[in-house]
Amino acid sequence: MPRIQPALELTQVTEWSDGTVRRIEDHLAAEEPLEIRIEGQPLTVTMRTPGHDEELAAGFVLTEGIIESASQLSEIRRITPEGAARDNIVSVEFGDRSFQPEILQRNFFAASSCGICGKASIQAIRVRGLTPPNATFRIDPELLCKFPARLRDQQKVFGRTGGLHAAALFDDAGSLLVLREDIGRHNAVDKVIGWALMKGLLPLSNCAMMVSGRGGFEIVQKALAAGIPILASVSAPSSLAVKLAREMGLTLIGFLRDRRFVVYSNPERCLPNHASNA
Amino acid sequence: MPRIQPALELTQVTEWSDGTVRRIEDHLAAEEPLEIRIEGQPLTVTMRTPGHDEELAAGFVLTEGIIESASQLSEIRRITPEGAARDNIVSVEFGDRSFQPEILQRNFFAASSCGICGKASIQAIRVRGLTPPNATFRIDPELLCKFPARLRDQQKVFGRTGGLHAAALFDDAGSLLVLREDIGRHNAVDKVIGWALMKGLLPLSNCAMMVSGRGGFEIVQKALAAGIPILASVSAPSSLAVKLAREMGLTLIGFLRDRRFVVYSNPERCLPNHASNA
Repeated sequence: MPRIQPALELTQVTEWSDGTVRRIEDHLAAEEPLEIRIEGQPLTVTMRTPGHDEELAAGFVLTEGIIESASQLSEIRRITPEGAARDNIVSVEFGDRSFQPEILQRNFFAASSCGICGKASIQAIRVRGLTPPNATFRIDPELLCKFPARLRDQQKVFGRTGGLHAAALFDDAGSLLVLREDIGRHNAVDKVIGWALMKGLLPLSNCAMMVSGRGGFEIVQKALAAGIPILASVSAPSSLAVKLAREMGLTLIGFLRDRRFVVYSNPERCLPNHASNA
Repeated sequence: MPRIQPALELTQVTEWSDGTVRRIEDHLAAEEPLEIRIEGQPLTVTMRTPGHDEELAAGFVLTEGIIESASQLSEIRRITPEGAARDNIVSVEFGDRSFQPEILQRNFFAASSCGICGKASIQAIRVRGLTPPNATFRIDPELLCKFPARLRDQQKVFGRTGGLHAAALFDDAGSLLVLREDIGRHNAVDKVIGWALMKGLLPLSNCAMMVSGRGGFEIVQKALAAGIPILASVSAPSSLAVKLAREMGLTLIGFLRDRRFVVYSNPERCLPNHASNA
């Protein structure tokens, strides 16, 4: 049996604080490679925080365009090579009818199919056939302002290490549905979306997603793949993230903290009285 | 001619601040895909902030183990497809003698060769033949404490957008040699190392690198590939980053801010009187 992999590891370190040196114990965010296979064939290796690996794999194959719905999945299997100390391989299995290797090829080679790399352009997104999310979803600004505190309350691991990114889903009443943390921002998003996919909740037409980091292009793309109409982050989005959000009609919010936020696209979902311009 | 790509883009956004809504202008960190080719063959696509693309490509091929020194490079060429609006392809060319496609194959497929993905394990690093950095390099804690302010002073773009990561090299006198920013942490590191490679400064045996984000496994690996003995970040390292740093004898520093830092490995380079334990 592979040993259980904790999300945190304790270690001895040396602290220097204004000239004073002392030995302290420190919790580290665990980081291990996860190999994701498709029908047993290696697809990618991602550095991730162990835990919720099946969700990560499910979310990855969905948000990278390899599958379009949960019905295409038959099983997500752990593979433990003989004598392996760690449990770092999962294989995504499809039903016979739905698996089309040529789709995998097209997507994988068109997109490099990986967190930070990949995705040539907004054009590639259009080709993938992503559709605009639910136009009628609304959320109150006062509810939005509560997201960061609710996210932090759940981020127990983050509080101890400072090293983990988080992604969380909220419903239109501002309730936190699920939170996942990972050493990689994209992985946290894939875990959250994979959770929803495995629960049969896709598309997430009446949910908002919040991420602890920055709103980059791939985070917007992943949100769109899951049908999420509102994406909020505590930090700044990138130019391409804003372009994609505007083109696809997703509400992109940045700098959500301290009773303030900035809306980069489609403000009508949270500021219906000020929605004359994007 | 492809148009010049700015690192910042100005856009109109909507701000909500404690109930008050107003339209403001906001600078966004530019994000565009860059395709890196090897001798004309596509290797990877990375989302990056335009600028210093040749450095990014040079740093990438070095830190990912495709080349080992600047002497293996003959040219880094921009490729502009007919009618392209953007200048988003560079090709790394080798001299005839040094280019071994089988090395590329081995490295690329063993490692997925990409920012966040890739790298199976510390074992793979050992196989790559990375060596411990300069054991005799020393830097004073008081100098270290000045890194964050010097980094911020240079981070003009960051100050305006909040969306860019930075990496910088410092010499043993605490002088900032180069700073690069990018939407991706790994890209900022690759640009800095690519700059040094193109200047003939490798290995960086007498330099410290500071990164604005977290110290993950791949950042440590990239530092080792460039021979950097000290790596500091403003945030927490991951467990695997610490393992790799300890195994290879790199001094890994975290939470460097407000006259405090934490040393995770090889403190002798900055705290020589307290170096009895790692």
